[in-house]
Amino acid sequence: MIPVGGLPEVREGDDVGALIAAAAELEDGDVVVVAHKVVSKAEGRVVRLGGVEPSARARDLAADEDPRRLEVILRESARVVRTRPPLVIAETRHGFVCASAGVDASNAPEPDTVVLLPEDPDASAGRLRDSLRELTGADVAVIVSDSFGRAWRQGTTDVAIGCAGVRPLVDLHGEHDAVGYELHATVIAVADELAGAAELVRGKLDRIPVAIVRGFDVRGEGNASELVMPPDRDLFR
Amino acid sequence: MIPVGGLPEVREGDDVGALIAAAAELEDGDVVVVAHKVVSKAEGRVVRLGGVEPSARARDLAADEDPRRLEVILRESARVVRTRPPLVIAETRHGFVCASAGVDASNAPEPDTVVLLPEDPDASAGRLRDSLRELTGADVAVIVSDSFGRAWRQGTTDVAIGCAGVRPLVDLHGEHDAVGYELHATVIAVADELAGAAELVRGKLDRIPVAIVRGFDVRGEGNASELVMPPDRDLFR
Repeated sequence: MIPVGGLPEVREGDDVGALIAAAAELEDGDVVVVAHKVVSKAEGRVVRLGGVEPSARARDLAADEDPRRLEVILRESARVVRTRPPLVIAETRHGFVCASAGVDASNAPEPDTVVLLPEDPDASAGRLRDSLRELTGADVAVIVSDSFGRAWRQGTTDVAIGCAGVRPLVDLHGEHDAVGYELHATVIAVADELAGAAELVRGKLDRIPVAIVRGFDVRGEGNASELVMPPDRDLFR
Repeated sequence: MIPVGGLPEVREGDDVGALIAAAAELEDGDVVVVAHKVVSKAEGRVVRLGGVEPSARARDLAADEDPRRLEVILRESARVVRTRPPLVIAETRHGFVCASAGVDASNAPEPDTVVLLPEDPDASAGRLRDSLRELTGADVAVIVSDSFGRAWRQGTTDVAIGCAGVRPLVDLHGEHDAVGYELHATVIAVADELAGAAELVRGKLDRIPVAIVRGFDVRGEGNASELVMPPDRDLFR
């Protein structure tokens, strides 16, 4: 686990691949885990609250907080799952269920702005992977991560919201343990475990938005949308 | 991340601390992550299905599977949360919400047996920590882990069901990011991220039930029951 520090504050239009390539020595098989905020800011996924007119519903949900932030959350939501003002758990257009539909005011580029999730985090990861290969020659996997809460458990863990060059799920279906029991329920969300492991060395406050996982070769094809439970299998819709 | 291999098949009454101390060189500050099955087997938390009489409800829930296994699941459940036979999501007496109330037939010591969660995984972690300190002199943290599914996301990740010598939640409450936004919602479940990271190097089939996380000093006091969302804050009961 290698934290990558020394990146400058990222702004719209910045080349995140070039910043990472300049800050780290990448090797074939590395998994590069990038906090989504860096990607979102470079992609211009930042909203200035000054121009946002809150709806009545946003005002209802805001409690004592800024209703303009709630308005942005509602606009980013495909479906509101639970509310306890000012907390909103929503499903995003990507299918992720998370607090505030991924809209976040922390680590925003300036006050009165909020950062959205990337429009298509899997595509963001793919572009970043291509860029890193072009700049460094290294065939790496890329995971774009965010901190999600969980039902029934306290605290957040980082999970993969975008992937490229990695199989997000490793399926042990049909393999057998030592006494012959088929492990038919064992599909491991390795991309989420990698994102969480990277969070441990990144830290939230230290301006280390990138970490490299080395020596754990999970190269393959897949994307983070596979991590979304299909509605027909989802017992918690 | 250091996988610890070479442990023998664990049986009731085995001294797990002695087995780990013999297989690994521990250092102060190490986090020793142990798959709960090793702990459960040593503690005799194994049920032979031969002596189990399934109830009518267990038969209903079993679909085409063994109703005796469902009966054990119901006995381990404080509350059934969702069912889709033969899948049962239940809350255990510890407050964990997980598939099959943590009852598992894979990696059981022999056919027609199932392994339960430890009676008190925090206490198990504490005893193991004390044993490792006595045997090796090293002041380590211990996490007892299990693979849990998640609402809305595919695949399992390993989480902490028992802890000793580690703060399971790191609260950034009141700290500020670079533009002064208070990170009031940022409580990170580091024990779960450590358990997930350990899973990556353990693997499910390789008989590596233990991994060591070195160089990430999270020593402190706390236990995994802090990771359970209190009912009054739980939006998903």
